Order: sequence, then C-alpha cells, then structure tokens
Amino acid sequence: MPIIILVNPQMGENIGAVARVMGNFALSELRIVFPRDGWPNEKAVAMAAGAEAILSDAKIYASTREAIADLEIVFATTIRGRDMVKPVVTAREAVSQFTSKTGILFGPERSGLSNDDTALSSAILSIPTNPAFSSLNLAQAVAICCYEWFQLQEKPAADKERQLAEKQEVLAMITHLETALETREFFKVPEMKERMRRNIENIFTRNQLTSQEVQTLRGIIACLEK
Amino acid sequence: MPIIILVNPQMGENIGAVARVMGNFALSELRIVFPRDGWPNEKAVAMAAGAEAILSDAKIYASTREAIADLEIVFATTIRGRDMVKPVVTAREAVSQFTSKTGILFGPERSGLSNDDTALSSAILSIPTNPAFSSLNLAQAVAICCYEWFQLQEKPAADKERQLAEKQEVLAMITHLETALETREFFKVPEMKERMRRNIENIFTRNQLTSQEVQTLRGIIACLEK
Repeated sequence: MPIIILVNPQMGENIGAVARVMGNFALSELRIVFPRDGWPNEKAVAMAAGAEAILSDAKIYASTREAIADLEIVFATTIRGRDMVKPVVTAREAVSQFTSKTGILFGPERSGLSNDDTALSSAILSIPTNPAFSSLNLAQAVAICCYEWFQLQEKPAADKERQLAEKQEVLAMITHLETALETREFFKVPEMKERMRRNIENIFTRNQLTSQEVQTLRGIIACLEK
Repeated sequence: MPIIILVNPQMGENIGAVARVMGNFALSELRIVFPRDGWPNEKAVAMAAGAEAILSDAKIYASTREAIADLEIVFATTIRGRDMVKPVVTAREAVSQFTSKTGILFGPERSGLSNDDTALSSAILSIPTNPAFSSLNLAQAVAICCYEWFQLQEKPAADKERQLAEKQEVLAMITHLETALETREFFKVPEMKERMRRNIENIFTRNQLTSQEVQTLRGIIACLEK
C-alpha cells in the first residue's frame, strides 16, 4: 500500500479531502511535511467526512528527507522536472511498481514540488492531462493515484473468475507452435528467427489468455499440423 | 466527449472543482439541474481556478428529463440502484462506450441520485471503491470519470505508432484460419461449432493486433496447413 506524502500543503481543506479519498480507495498512511497552517488543522477535519482516523494517524515531519527516510521507492508527482534525468511514468504505470515501502510525494498547491524534493525521488509520476490546463487540484491528483492503485488491487478477483492461464501453459503452447513451425522451416532466414519468435511470443502473451483459450489454440495447432 | 450533468448540486465549491477537473481532462460541456444555491454561484467561480469558461457556458435545467433530452446514452453514477435491472459498468469500462451524445449523471452530495433519475439512465456507472468507506466527494467522482475518458483519448496516438491492423485485416485472417480448420474437420460437433468460432474470434480480436502481427499469423497458418 503506497504512502501519501504531502509536502508543505497550504490549505487544510485539501488535506482533509486527501484523507477522505485515501479512505475511499483503502489507503491509510498519510505523512505531512511542514504543513503551512500547523497541525492539527480544523479545516482538514471538517473535509475528511469520515476519514478522521487517517488524519489523526498522520505523521508530521520537518523535512522531506526525514519523511522518506525509511522508504524503498519514492515517486514525485510533478509536471516539471522533465529535464531531470529520472524515469517518467504515468499513474497507471507507476502503481504496478509499488512495493510495501513506496511513497508518493505531492508538492504545495501553488508551486508544486521543488526541484530539491523531486531530486530525492526514484522516478517522476506524471498524470496525463490537458496540456492547455494541466494544473490539478492537490486532492484530485492524490485521488487519481489512489484510484489507480485500488483498481490494480481489484483486478485479481475479476481475472480469477475468467481462470486465466498460468504463464507455463501459455509458454508450453508457444513452444508447441514454434516446434511445429521449425519442422516446416518457417524460420528460414537465421537472422530473422529471433525477431519472428519475439513477435509470436508478443502476440500471445500481451493478451491475458484463459486456460480454455490456450486449449483452443493447442487444438488449432494440432489440427493444422496434421 | 461526454457531457457532465450535475443533478441538484448543493455546494458551489464542488461545482467549481468539477469545472476545473473537466478542464484538466479536456472536457467542456457541463449541465446543471436545479442547483441548490441558484446560478451563477460565486463559490463555484472561486474554485474553478482557470476553468471559469466551463461555468459560464454551463446550461441550467429545471429537471433531469430536460437535461438529457437530446442525448443518446446516459450513465447514472450511483452505488445504489444495484437492484434495478440495468447494466452496471465500471468507469473504465464505460468510457469505451461513450458516443458524442453521452451524458453522465451525478447526484447531490448528501443523497446521491434518486431512483427516479437513475431510472432515466441507460446504465449504472460504478466507481470501484473501498466498500467500508465508499462515498466519494462529488468532484472526485467526476474527476475519475473525466480521467478515464482522457486516458482513452491518449491511447490512439500510441496505438497509431504501432500501426494497428484494420478490423477487415483481422477478420480476413480469422476467415483464413477457420477455412483451414473447416477443411481439416476441426468443427466436428455441429453444436459446438458456433462456440468454438466465437472463442477463436475472441482470442484474436480482444487483443489490438498490429498489421505486422496479422501478417505473422497468416504466415503461421499458411505454413502449418502446408
């Protein structure tokens, strides 16, 4: 579960809205670096709408450095910093990289994260927005990160119903196909062989095939090679 | 581009936050049914943070019925209404069904959409949330719908680079495969034929194949049926 880290947040209302949306998407750990209006903050409590526990459990830090000291991976949400030599990932891409010790840094409302804070991060997390009007409200930016993380947690349940094939079933099917093609001299040009192989593997692994579908494909290969 | 329809919104701040996040994700058409505090609303303008044009262009209606009269598809965002006989889709699933005349209804902050308003919709749009704390702030719910729509718009650019196959290429490849299978009596059991056919079509159409990949698959079929 990612840890949300607000750096120098200005408005209590936004901190409260952040806590609420964290609760909506089953996140619980909030860290706050030097909140402008001190702590605790009544306006934050008023906006939390049921997520007061997240606020009262929030840890307050004097610096970003201290707030991230125990973490493995830190993402910086920013639309600047593109000139920094850091990987840039979308929110959707980032959530699949989260470990149990991952933090996401969000800067103050007016200015966003400073270059110094961004420099402390492992990667830039960028939410794709309208380039002509890209400045998201702080709580909205947090909402989208939390939402993406929660969707990823939801997925396994839906996938289980479809009985997804295990990787080994898919790879055995691909081996079956490649052996049949090899026998028929499909890979005539040696230089092309590896690329063709990758193409084939890509076609069948990109898609999340079910066990039933892998069986169907094996049936097709067996039928055609008769 | 979907139309955001707020039914009886209570707080001006939320209406302003909705306008801002619509702008962030390149949406522009806002409709409001009977706003509690009248219209225009100063608090809405204060929260729009640059999206004032969306507010001033917003159309005001006296009833939900009038607000949706010219639309083809209407989604109702609600966590209730599950007992209604309506399809329920997630935000991520819904956005791929949007036409140019699609509206998304959002109910008032306290109570959500009424059953009467939900009954007017084509389907329920449900945002998966923590079941123990599922009540999203109005502007956050709008944000996630707008975000999902915008992510879908971003996709074609990336896909174009990959030169996606046209549907007719994919269908011709499937016909090629099915003819080869037919010749080899793959569809032995007549009752199973249609289901097998659907399985095959599903495997190759779910995936967005590139032209290159369709060529590879045709090469494979031709090679195996030799």
